[in-house]
Amino acid sequence: MLRFIGLGLAAALSWTGQAMADAVSTFTLDNGLEVVVIEDHRAPVVVHMVWYRIGAADESAGHSGIAHFLEHLMFKGTDEVASGDFSAIVEAQGGNDNAFTSHDYTAYFQRVAADRLDLMMKMEADRMRDLRLTEEDVLTERDVILEERGQRTDSDPGALLSEQMSAAQFLNHSYGVPIIGWRHEIGALSRQDALDFYQANYAPNNAILVVAGDVTPDDVLELAKTHYGPLAPSDRITPRDRPSEPPQLTERRMVFADERVSEPYMIRTYLAPERNAGDQSEAAALTMLAELLGGSGTTSVFARALQFETQTAVWASAFYNGTSVDPDTFGVVIMPAPGISLADAEAALDGVIAKFLKDGVNPDDFARIKAQVRASEIYARDDAQALAREYGEALAVGLTVQDVQDWPAALQAVTPEDVMAAAHKVLDRKQAVTGWLTQEEAAE
Amino acid sequence: MLRFIGLGLAAALSWTGQAMADAVSTFTLDNGLEVVVIEDHRAPVVVHMVWYRIGAADESAGHSGIAHFLEHLMFKGTDEVASGDFSAIVEAQGGNDNAFTSHDYTAYFQRVAADRLDLMMKMEADRMRDLRLTEEDVLTERDVILEERGQRTDSDPGALLSEQMSAAQFLNHSYGVPIIGWRHEIGALSRQDALDFYQANYAPNNAILVVAGDVTPDDVLELAKTHYGPLAPSDRITPRDRPSEPPQLTERRMVFADERVSEPYMIRTYLAPERNAGDQSEAAALTMLAELLGGSGTTSVFARALQFETQTAVWASAFYNGTSVDPDTFGVVIMPAPGISLADAEAALDGVIAKFLKDGVNPDDFARIKAQVRASEIYARDDAQALAREYGEALAVGLTVQDVQDWPAALQAVTPEDVMAAAHKVLDRKQAVTGWLTQEEAAE
Repeated sequence: MLRFIGLGLAAALSWTGQAMADAVSTFTLDNGLEVVVIEDHRAPVVVHMVWYRIGAADESAGHSGIAHFLEHLMFKGTDEVASGDFSAIVEAQGGNDNAFTSHDYTAYFQRVAADRLDLMMKMEADRMRDLRLTEEDVLTERDVILEERGQRTDSDPGALLSEQMSAAQFLNHSYGVPIIGWRHEIGALSRQDALDFYQANYAPNNAILVVAGDVTPDDVLELAKTHYGPLAPSDRITPRDRPSEPPQLTERRMVFADERVSEPYMIRTYLAPERNAGDQSEAAALTMLAELLGGSGTTSVFARALQFETQTAVWASAFYNGTSVDPDTFGVVIMPAPGISLADAEAALDGVIAKFLKDGVNPDDFARIKAQVRASEIYARDDAQALAREYGEALAVGLTVQDVQDWPAALQAVTPEDVMAAAHKVLDRKQAVTGWLTQEEAAE
Repeated sequence: MLRFIGLGLAAALSWTGQAMADAVSTFTLDNGLEVVVIEDHRAPVVVHMVWYRIGAADESAGHSGIAHFLEHLMFKGTDEVASGDFSAIVEAQGGNDNAFTSHDYTAYFQRVAADRLDLMMKMEADRMRDLRLTEEDVLTERDVILEERGQRTDSDPGALLSEQMSAAQFLNHSYGVPIIGWRHEIGALSRQDALDFYQANYAPNNAILVVAGDVTPDDVLELAKTHYGPLAPSDRITPRDRPSEPPQLTERRMVFADERVSEPYMIRTYLAPERNAGDQSEAAALTMLAELLGGSGTTSVFARALQFETQTAVWASAFYNGTSVDPDTFGVVIMPAPGISLADAEAALDGVIAKFLKDGVNPDDFARIKAQVRASEIYARDDAQALAREYGEALAVGLTVQDVQDWPAALQAVTPEDVMAAAHKVLDRKQAVTGWLTQEEAAE
């Protein structure tokens, strides 16, 4: 904790007008693999990540869930590693591993002692091009995923509402399709679908290797050349031009009633722009807006007006994450206090938003939020794994190393005018979906 | 009119238990072209139609509007016919021609004196495989279509609401994309897009030729062999497996406010099943349901309850057309009487629906509707052009000649129990989109 504070102050003091210098080196192999190395010698551990520039929003229509399905199948075997052994080997080396899929990318992580990096690379490179899938592997894993969907989505009213809202938010873009896939489409995914998706998209020229921890760039480059260098690129990588949205002309509203709902809430998402390479200022303003309106803690505009001054809400929040390939959403949510209807809670929230749009940013709030954001950015920079993740994610959605390094300064450069311009643009209910989660139909 | 009544009675008398026998012959050429001939020698005219089994719902994501764009471009030239001359030649022969695009098909019609059929076939066959498009043709026509969209959609609040509602109705299926295309995607369509779509999909093995009028099947077959026979089939015809809908779990609602709206209304569409080959009974029940609830005339359930008994509505209606490849919608609409709010009108309509679902079908209504439907089916059968259109449309969406011939009997076979079962299944607001068209935001 002391170390964090010390670093925080030092970094903050050296902030003025320049990006913070992470110890980051980058290379590109001849086969197209981008390599990012983040040195951090404080502990003899290393994080090894491969990020593929392929996700659920890149799936072809009618085949939802294939990106996530393939993520599961990547833990099946190759010629070198028997089916199901991958994670067991990592664990036997004292490490742990993980993987996940978003609309924009699929990523594989291991965290191990630094002297195991060679083995991790060997195994990850091996499954990049040499996955072996039996029909049985595929059918078994498909059942696992259907079960996962059953637990995480189909039995959770909030998750179902979120899924229906996303589908209504995007009139044209594939962000409206759930990452895990629609159940009826998951059930139809085949071994051939998985192999086609894999062979087209899993290749060095569609991947970013991020290594963070107790390593040197030279060593990483050498190892990467040895393990990833021989892999053939794919000639089937296509530009990620998903269908873009037409003008959204009218708010969509929905009420999801389910007897399992114990705590009703109102949630609204607005279509919102994303970070773009060399052009992050609007996303930075929206990030600040989300913190101002509904950041964590008790001093946000929403918390003050809706929780403390009026006791309308148990909590109210705002959320935004601009790290995506295409425009995504800015969200607000309110959980009414007992005895307050969803209609009244929504009206109160809209009243607070309207007042904010009229009155503008409170200077004290803004200064405080800037300090908080700065601290959390510094905190993230002190965590090699978080930093590795930040670089990997950014590069996977089309940003550059420079964009990542510019981001903290972009946040600090946001002015109150920037925030208000972004707020007036984005907080437009014509481009929004509003959902009520409630226990009873009658509550409509 | 006398002739119609005479035919109507005759046909009705011979109805019992058997399909009405249209004078229809069918053939298939070696290259896959289906040919339907409907003889009608009452006048020396002929209708010549080519239906392609390709429409807006078959477009690839991000390229909306290409099917309709190509329909326009089909009036550009070939090696034989100069650009823009097609319709002029038809007119010079005393005929007229037309074309249109739906989500499921694209069709081209000419109506001419019977002795001009040879020329029509020659010209239509010529442009089936030999279209020539210059860059200038394409750019000029694209502007025409953008202008068309401007006039028909972008300047019409009702059309815009309908478009936004369709996009919200379909969470996954491509019926949510407008036939004319999203403006920003139309603007990006290229000559190459049009040629690719044309070459893949315009071919004898993806088309139905319908000829109706003063012809004999033998003559038509001979001419078809001469003109269409030499055309090469396409090897790029794929099954029409568009993405199907996931469970729709919650009603979507929207209010479209525009100062140009002079007559506000509430419109709601419910997801509804379609006619399927050999399985038309549910669609037949829904057809009867639409007639019962809100058919034209003043005796429908809606008209009686909402216009005459309570003066809640200026008019109220229901609509359904089951002739589609995939499930589409069943709709209801109410235009409130002056002084009645949209909320009250909607509540009144829902009250009528609820009462109908509880009370069931009134036997007198049902008998009357059956007679009306029978008369209109007979009327359609007396019109060679309408009949040609019915066969062409049905075959283009995957139905058979037998299905078309069975349809009138399927309608007559519907029981009150069938209607109520279909009503209870389809009139589920969880699967619906409800839109209000209104002049002012305040009217929300």
